[in-house]
Amino acid sequence: MTYTLILLRHGNSDWNQKNLFTGWVDVRLSDQGVDEAKRAGELLAASGLKPEILYTSVLTRAIQTANLALEVADRLWIPVKRTWRLNERHYGALQGLDKAETLEKFGQEKFMEWRRSFDVPPPVLEDDAEYSQVHDERYIGIDGEIPRTESLALVIDRMLPYWESDITVDLKAGKTVLVTAHGNSLRALIKHLDHISDADISELNVPTGIPLVYELDDNLVPVKPAYYLDPEAAAAGAAAVANQGKK
Amino acid sequence: MTYTLILLRHGNSDWNQKNLFTGWVDVRLSDQGVDEAKRAGELLAASGLKPEILYTSVLTRAIQTANLALEVADRLWIPVKRTWRLNERHYGALQGLDKAETLEKFGQEKFMEWRRSFDVPPPVLEDDAEYSQVHDERYIGIDGEIPRTESLALVIDRMLPYWESDITVDLKAGKTVLVTAHGNSLRALIKHLDHISDADISELNVPTGIPLVYELDDNLVPVKPAYYLDPEAAAAGAAAVANQGKK
Repeated sequence: MTYTLILLRHGNSDWNQKNLFTGWVDVRLSDQGVDEAKRAGELLAASGLKPEILYTSVLTRAIQTANLALEVADRLWIPVKRTWRLNERHYGALQGLDKAETLEKFGQEKFMEWRRSFDVPPPVLEDDAEYSQVHDERYIGIDGEIPRTESLALVIDRMLPYWESDITVDLKAGKTVLVTAHGNSLRALIKHLDHISDADISELNVPTGIPLVYELDDNLVPVKPAYYLDPEAAAAGAAAVANQGKK
Repeated sequence: MTYTLILLRHGNSDWNQKNLFTGWVDVRLSDQGVDEAKRAGELLAASGLKPEILYTSVLTRAIQTANLALEVADRLWIPVKRTWRLNERHYGALQGLDKAETLEKFGQEKFMEWRRSFDVPPPVLEDDAEYSQVHDERYIGIDGEIPRTESLALVIDRMLPYWESDITVDLKAGKTVLVTAHGNSLRALIKHLDHISDADISELNVPTGIPLVYELDDNLVPVKPAYYLDPEAAAAGAAAVANQGKK
């Protein structure tokens, strides 16, 4: 018997369109993102895969994506668990900055280090900054401190405990699990599942709005390479993500 | 300290528009119902009430209503619990029948008895009937038997245990609770909260898409009469519900 895990990155958001660093800022899907989410639902329905439980971050764009996809796939009724541990990487002081301007101001090296290095977080976001989340009601009472910036390594540190405590339990109970989240929280999970090195993960880009399917054995090791439900669109989407910030 | 409970009946559905008995048949919101749900979100946002946890049935029209209202109110991120115990009354063999035709065929007395009596369920829906839910995946493993018909009394019997085991626990923890459900599961809850008699409950109609707010004391007794966030629209909506099935 194998276990089925489906990963889905939220579609294009208002701030993707404006080419701003988003992180924990709670922006919404753009019209394009809405269409991507519905298309993800069509792909799910056509695949015959039937998610039995949904995990999402607590960010609106991931929740919208899940709601739209599951409505199209006629499975809005499945149970839902939300957790900040599936949130996007906190982009620190970059949150709210224009990507192209940041690239120009700090240079290609620093820019790529912040975006793609494994363990170098951007500068800390001050608590009184416009795009700080320290006073956001949804983070009252989270375990430990709310982050002020994160590297991918730090995302892994806060995501994996939840993977172990909750998501793997549902998988091992035989449930088909759908995780609707973000570029970096999904990269963190993929790195773990596929044993990707700290160096190689920088090259991995997750396209938006295309379900990625894992079949896992009893030890939650993939029995074959994970596959996208629309491989052609996924390849094009990953290339587009890789080119973000370039003019 | 008082506890806040907000009840919201889903908006107009495809089958409301066709004037069919719906019950457990999983129809979707009509365009009008979508607008009503968004309006409910505006009313919530304007009221300053902040739902901290959502309870819904497992029927799509209630979940759509909650998702649309919370998206407008900017609170999609709150935790969600779904339960069949908040489902609409199972309308037995009436599910899928036209209300006006049913009235004509069985007469006003029988029709009103099925719709409004406290403890007379409609005829049983056979398991091989088109609109039976006995093979619906979402009801696998529910406690006890899936109903084949229900009176309001039977709705109360299956709803109240969940009220006691789950919803009251969140209320007593001080959380503002939003319950998004159906005409009869909400009538069941209102009957319990306001100690309405078996006879009088037949006269109570819950309008669609307008949040109804309870402030409850430590014993979950209302400290004042519950109020609708848009009282005028609520009165008009309740009258419209009362007139359903009339030509």
